[in-house]
Amino acid sequence: MQITRPTLLLDKTRVQRNIGKMVEKARRHGVTLRPHFKTHQSAQIGEWFRDHGIDRITVSSIEMAHYFAQNGWRDILIAFPVNIRAIDTLNMLAQTLSLHLVVESQETIAYLIRHLKQPATLWLKVDTGYGRTGVPTSNEELLLTLTEQIVWTPHLQLGGLLAHAGHSYFARSPEEVVAIFDDTRKQLYYLKTMLEQACGIEIQISVGDTPGCSLATKFDGIDEIRPGNFVFYDLMQLRLGACEEQDIAVAVACPVVAKHADRNEVIIHGGAVHLSKETLEEDGQPPHYGYVCRLLDDRWSLHLNGARVRALSQEHGIVSLPRQDFERIRIGELLVVLPVHSCLTANLMRGYLTFDDEALDMMR
Amino acid sequence: MQITRPTLLLDKTRVQRNIGKMVEKARRHGVTLRPHFKTHQSAQIGEWFRDHGIDRITVSSIEMAHYFAQNGWRDILIAFPVNIRAIDTLNMLAQTLSLHLVVESQETIAYLIRHLKQPATLWLKVDTGYGRTGVPTSNEELLLTLTEQIVWTPHLQLGGLLAHAGHSYFARSPEEVVAIFDDTRKQLYYLKTMLEQACGIEIQISVGDTPGCSLATKFDGIDEIRPGNFVFYDLMQLRLGACEEQDIAVAVACPVVAKHADRNEVIIHGGAVHLSKETLEEDGQPPHYGYVCRLLDDRWSLHLNGARVRALSQEHGIVSLPRQDFERIRIGELLVVLPVHSCLTANLMRGYLTFDDEALDMMR
Repeated sequence: MQITRPTLLLDKTRVQRNIGKMVEKARRHGVTLRPHFKTHQSAQIGEWFRDHGIDRITVSSIEMAHYFAQNGWRDILIAFPVNIRAIDTLNMLAQTLSLHLVVESQETIAYLIRHLKQPATLWLKVDTGYGRTGVPTSNEELLLTLTEQIVWTPHLQLGGLLAHAGHSYFARSPEEVVAIFDDTRKQLYYLKTMLEQACGIEIQISVGDTPGCSLATKFDGIDEIRPGNFVFYDLMQLRLGACEEQDIAVAVACPVVAKHADRNEVIIHGGAVHLSKETLEEDGQPPHYGYVCRLLDDRWSLHLNGARVRALSQEHGIVSLPRQDFERIRIGELLVVLPVHSCLTANLMRGYLTFDDEALDMMR
Repeated sequence: MQITRPTLLLDKTRVQRNIGKMVEKARRHGVTLRPHFKTHQSAQIGEWFRDHGIDRITVSSIEMAHYFAQNGWRDILIAFPVNIRAIDTLNMLAQTLSLHLVVESQETIAYLIRHLKQPATLWLKVDTGYGRTGVPTSNEELLLTLTEQIVWTPHLQLGGLLAHAGHSYFARSPEEVVAIFDDTRKQLYYLKTMLEQACGIEIQISVGDTPGCSLATKFDGIDEIRPGNFVFYDLMQLRLGACEEQDIAVAVACPVVAKHADRNEVIIHGGAVHLSKETLEEDGQPPHYGYVCRLLDDRWSLHLNGARVRALSQEHGIVSLPRQDFERIRIGELLVVLPVHSCLTANLMRGYLTFDDEALDMMR
């Protein structure tokens, strides 16, 4: 590998293993895996999922739906509240796709009833405690109204209830992650039963979030899971106990450009435009932007204990190191940074390099 | 304007005014303006600078140097410590450019002496208190060694001393910004005199940072300024007093996709992949990701008092609003977010739309 600038390394063995494990877990629990492709945004990595029999996917934007549709995917859920300004593109996509959309208001559904010219499946976005968006589970009346609004419209189909229990990211232990997942599952199951009885139709349940799907062992009542980050994992997931360090499958190789012996710090080319400004706080220490590893022939090492990306500006990263590590590092060599949040890092890096020197593209 | 998705709006009048003011200020103080193009990364915006007679520029990466070289720029400073792994590209660039490079160690200079095949101008990176990188001003011995190392090498020319007083971003008042700028100026002047006397050569002084260059009124001893952010400004600069709100020249138009009346919050399509996760803390309030404006016909409004982007995930923004503003907003309309840090936002958005419906490209 001839690396001259910040480069997103991808460990293909780990990615394949992460995919295989989640596929097997979904199979074992009898749930459909509809992986979220916003993490990798890559047609080539998408094919690795297809090799495992995956044929339904989740994306986070209309542009991403378009990209994966062009790459042969035919059953796509856009897991973001419908943006009615993009109705023309949605109509175009719905012509060729089994298109799944997310709604949470009467206004948006009314708009789709009038302007969506193709059949589509709508999912009701439910907020099970994350507090981002969706109908709060307590608002059963609105959920009932929305359900009736959809089932009375011929060209709209109701998929069911969809939630992203993103509050799992604030959990302080794997047990808490599982408790949040379980709470979401039960809340949705209660609503499903209520709506099925009231409207006489079948309601499916779709849940997301990598921490929950990685750690939970009980999926009763769930029809579909939509984790995405598990394909790469990252330091946030490691902190939550959702993965091991050896599961983290992407990392940024960064050239060392300066050393500061007075403060045991080196400067890398690897800044906010490569890693993102996502931070991680651990053990009451100041927030940091990533762990630091050495580059080996066919992989990166385990992280150097006590080494952290302490600060970032647009292109610079400041890496703080224990003295003995600092002394071994030479200007011009590469350090490898494990990202705090791999989705944002991949989104910035716009491509991958495997240890077989294969370059993988992402959507533009 | 037919905006269907998150779009980076650019107010051309403001950009032109920002450029004009800095050009005029540099002229008035007899310093060369070598603007930093990492903020806009756009050949078309570069032309607006050229219209003002600018012919020397600053960039933050070798790729950016290459992009602007392809767009006709011939005098380029890469304001980042030389990455020796990229020596082939540097040699290629130095063939056609007046190439300026930044160094701060004997190792890197020694490497350039051996491997740089074309003439280039080297600048000594000095740390005047920011604590990121560069030789601390206290280390006169090293600065003298580096100077001698360069001046004894025929194909390398010494430009002088270069600093970025980035600690101005932590200032709590315009006066403090000016004090930091002035302190940097004097420290560099002291070192310049010392090196000129010791080596019998001419040493120039180049300083950066938009807050300092916007607010300072004394530039004695300075030869060149390299601000970049001033072309757009942003909320960080506004907080520092380096600009007025009406100087902020880019903002992200974001479709409203959901409303939450119980918490006076709306959800916009505009997340970490559009705005970046850069935050601003003000008045002991929790950190936020941007101010929020209404979209008018030919501009955006002043920001809505008390409205903030409270949280971001990959694609979602949560906007917290005063009740009366909340009530007026409809699903499907656009809100406009003033960015905390316009450099990172522009870097993510990869293009601009003016109010004349002109799309401006950025480097890829």
